[in-house]
Amino acid sequence: MSHKTQEPVITRVSDLPLSEAKWVTLKKVEYVDQVGKARTWEVATRKTRAEKAGVDAVAMGNILLHPRRAPATLIVIQYRPPLDAYTVEWPAGLVDAGETAEEAAVREFKEETGYDCKVLSVSPVQAADPGMTNANMQLVMVQVKLDEATDEPPEQRLEDGEHIQRVIVPLSEFYDRLVEYSKKERFIVAAKLFHFAAGMHFAKTETYGIYPN
Amino acid sequence: MSHKTQEPVITRVSDLPLSEAKWVTLKKVEYVDQVGKARTWEVATRKTRAEKAGVDAVAMGNILLHPRRAPATLIVIQYRPPLDAYTVEWPAGLVDAGETAEEAAVREFKEETGYDCKVLSVSPVQAADPGMTNANMQLVMVQVKLDEATDEPPEQRLEDGEHIQRVIVPLSEFYDRLVEYSKKERFIVAAKLFHFAAGMHFAKTETYGIYPN
Repeated sequence: MSHKTQEPVITRVSDLPLSEAKWVTLKKVEYVDQVGKARTWEVATRKTRAEKAGVDAVAMGNILLHPRRAPATLIVIQYRPPLDAYTVEWPAGLVDAGETAEEAAVREFKEETGYDCKVLSVSPVQAADPGMTNANMQLVMVQVKLDEATDEPPEQRLEDGEHIQRVIVPLSEFYDRLVEYSKKERFIVAAKLFHFAAGMHFAKTETYGIYPN
Repeated sequence: MSHKTQEPVITRVSDLPLSEAKWVTLKKVEYVDQVGKARTWEVATRKTRAEKAGVDAVAMGNILLHPRRAPATLIVIQYRPPLDAYTVEWPAGLVDAGETAEEAAVREFKEETGYDCKVLSVSPVQAADPGMTNANMQLVMVQVKLDEATDEPPEQRLEDGEHIQRVIVPLSEFYDRLVEYSKKERFIVAAKLFHFAAGMHFAKTETYGIYPN
């Protein structure tokens, strides 16, 4: 691709009336709580949830295996207008109508990274940000086997307007690299990715003797 | 507390016009992308971000140490209207105006759990759900030292309308217990918590040889 690229810039932020919103909306939930009291809660919700999967999105925790290199993971960096920043995430995407989470994972992984992957496991449904939204997701762990011939990364199949940079990080450096990215101007790491790496780091470095033999 | 409790029930869900929303709102972001093309993005945003910290919320990853028991963590279970479900999370809360993330962590942990804690570390700022919102958070790792006398859990200082159940889980069973909760009717685990536990589990069980000696 020979597009000349530039730093994205926000030109205007304005209120978005519900009548004009296509992707997200606001709902008022009225409910009766545990002690019988009537209460309300404000919720931001996606308008795109696929009925079949009952889940908004999948994220692909991934392991890249190569005959001569340390096990690694592929992270994606892209400009995210909600944050006006470059986010560091695992590949992820919305589940389309008629798709299972597993199918969405294989499709989105191919589109964003160019690689074919094998699904290792699918997590239970998780709540993205429970205090604010009903958005939910599943973590699909996938594996990619590289061979000597795949030194050139395969072509991505990005949608119009997607500009996604791929970075391969050895898993032994995963946590430290995310901390480094967090220090860069205009970069922010996605919470789910950071928590997974922080969990790995905690298990590796903890001195509490959590896992007795 | 001797309140008679019941299952919460949603009585009505309606559109929430921006003019009536107090906690969340929708914005239209207009921006120019990497190749110079004008685009728009729809964003759900909190109306409550504290200026001092520049961060919406903190979550408290916590380790409970007891002289005779295995190292454990305290999770909280509460009814969350956005999901119409009981969520399993680490204690968390919004950062108040004038507070640092560290101060908010100690205050919120005391309110939700009743325990005094010591802050071990504060993570970089993380993006809660980058495709949909600018909401952000920091993971604050805290430690609580229990002694023989603290067999009775201390009293919570909950706000009006908060009903938060505390569950102490040995860290060695952390991941398995979250998977179990996910199978329960009307329960959902928060993504950040699940990802941390999944990262621990992955580091403990992986056979890739990620961490060479």
